[in-house]
Amino acid sequence: MSDLEVDRARNLQRVDEVVRLASITEGEDLPAEPFARIGAIVEKIAAERGVGAFDVSPRFPTALADVLRGRGLGIRWRPAPFVPERECKTSEEIEHIRAAVRHTEAALQAGIERIANAQIRDGKLTDGEVALTSEAVRLTINAELLARECFCTTVIVAGGEQAVDPHDRGSGPLLANRPIILDVFPRDNKTRYCGDMTRTVVRGEASDEARRMFLAVKASKDAAEAVVRAGIDGQDVHAAASKVFEDEGFETGVKDGRMVGFFHGTGHGLGLDVHERPRVSKTHDILKAGHVITIEPGLYYPGIGGVRLEDDVVVTEDGCENLCLMSCEPFEI
Amino acid sequence: MSDLEVDRARNLQRVDEVVRLASITEGEDLPAEPFARIGAIVEKIAAERGVGAFDVSPRFPTALADVLRGRGLGIRWRPAPFVPERECKTSEEIEHIRAAVRHTEAALQAGIERIANAQIRDGKLTDGEVALTSEAVRLTINAELLARECFCTTVIVAGGEQAVDPHDRGSGPLLANRPIILDVFPRDNKTRYCGDMTRTVVRGEASDEARRMFLAVKASKDAAEAVVRAGIDGQDVHAAASKVFEDEGFETGVKDGRMVGFFHGTGHGLGLDVHERPRVSKTHDILKAGHVITIEPGLYYPGIGGVRLEDDVVVTEDGCENLCLMSCEPFEI
Repeated sequence: MSDLEVDRARNLQRVDEVVRLASITEGEDLPAEPFARIGAIVEKIAAERGVGAFDVSPRFPTALADVLRGRGLGIRWRPAPFVPERECKTSEEIEHIRAAVRHTEAALQAGIERIANAQIRDGKLTDGEVALTSEAVRLTINAELLARECFCTTVIVAGGEQAVDPHDRGSGPLLANRPIILDVFPRDNKTRYCGDMTRTVVRGEASDEARRMFLAVKASKDAAEAVVRAGIDGQDVHAAASKVFEDEGFETGVKDGRMVGFFHGTGHGLGLDVHERPRVSKTHDILKAGHVITIEPGLYYPGIGGVRLEDDVVVTEDGCENLCLMSCEPFEI
Repeated sequence: MSDLEVDRARNLQRVDEVVRLASITEGEDLPAEPFARIGAIVEKIAAERGVGAFDVSPRFPTALADVLRGRGLGIRWRPAPFVPERECKTSEEIEHIRAAVRHTEAALQAGIERIANAQIRDGKLTDGEVALTSEAVRLTINAELLARECFCTTVIVAGGEQAVDPHDRGSGPLLANRPIILDVFPRDNKTRYCGDMTRTVVRGEASDEARRMFLAVKASKDAAEAVVRAGIDGQDVHAAASKVFEDEGFETGVKDGRMVGFFHGTGHGLGLDVHERPRVSKTHDILKAGHVITIEPGLYYPGIGGVRLEDDVVVTEDGCENLCLMSCEPFEI
């Protein structure tokens, strides 16, 4: 560690030894290029300790791998998960995620209340004299998160046609009578664990098609949660979620040059990162007890809009525990 | 791009072509391991376009480099800057940074006002009946940033002995009569450009040593800014900042097992990232017109505390333009 970081590193460390960088570099004639320089330093540390090869993450920098291999050291990348302990959560980790989920719910609630309290004028939502925008609701949500020492880099508040793109964060005036997707995935800064939840609401009256979509997404989410248990393939959870849409006649595929229907995975692992293993999608991936995963089916059709619902569940031997307490309803507020 | 992202990518793209991933993978028997899989996809795309080798960033993942080389493709990493256009800022980029600096100043001002309005009880700052904490001032600063569509991952509000570690973010009750460092480096979410500023204040009365430190840091910052111009070595700017401390008798080095004095660089490039090229430190790095750099000398002594002042300047042919308007004074508030 550099002189700037070495004292803090020694205080925070859970490792065997923290080495002061200057103790290696002082008086040495090192290359100027940063990776060549780091390579020379690593070679010196490795030689002092009799280390001849390193296991590294798949994302280890190519430049450093090339430099170290050039100096005769072995660099072997190991497929993910590089830290296998991260995959199945301990009970302590699950409590951290549960706490992050509580914060996520409070922030979602604040955003939904802001929308529920909006007036409707000429088909648009207003807050007194001004339009209620995605940005304003996002600020309400982030202010609630901030007060709880959480933060979410990209809160999604997307309505109307914007909600048809599942990753559009939303911007500008929100419309009445159209579904608004709120997707909040904060990290709790105290523990570093994440929550990830989505709700969809309509301020005013939803169209019949949007109401049908909402009921189908809710049924799809229930169907997926019903099959989750240790040993099942994520593929089969995804298939259970998809089957509800097929049975209800909601088609997925390219229409007029863009994807419509249910065209993302059903979920993903959640922990220190918002997205981690396992995947719950078309890909083969066996669920294990202690996995914490999202279940988040959605439907997206131009002209109608987008509907997505998302909860976080812990996989158990014989099923799953839903960490979320907040209802998916009411849809119309 | 996956089906989930392809429409948004086509809308946002500034590239020649966006390829739908499924158009490559459909009907193919691809490896399951993610990097082996990506490698197979890249090989297919490269073959279709007659590409035999790639220039990559030094941080390109080792796993993917190994897979692609194994498939006979050339992978050559290029030393930083991988995108050389990022180093010298255009006038449009400078205006984005200037705007980010305005937001940074407003947030710093809000934090300093919160401290200025605190009462002093038994040597501690209070806000009515409760202790004024680093966390509370951090929340004030982040709320101001959020309302401006900016965010800073780690606002530093560190007083007392915490401020002796330049990267301690600060926690718990703030003390009266001791320097409090406020370091704010937000990204403007509209433009993605960053600001980075530091002020140090004392609520109450500073000790004579702390006051001497403040005056020396201010003189060091002025001395560094006075020598900045296109063509100078960052080393020489750092030397000018350091010389003020040496002349005033402030020693730098290890004392009682920890670093004291001025033991970090004088500054760093600022742009789309908070830290980018060039460095203004002991390292050789020639400044160019259009570089935007921080100038941030500091002094840190256990028992007294930490003092750091930081502005952002644009390097010009014959000097520099300071983008910050906010004064470094008053020190005592």
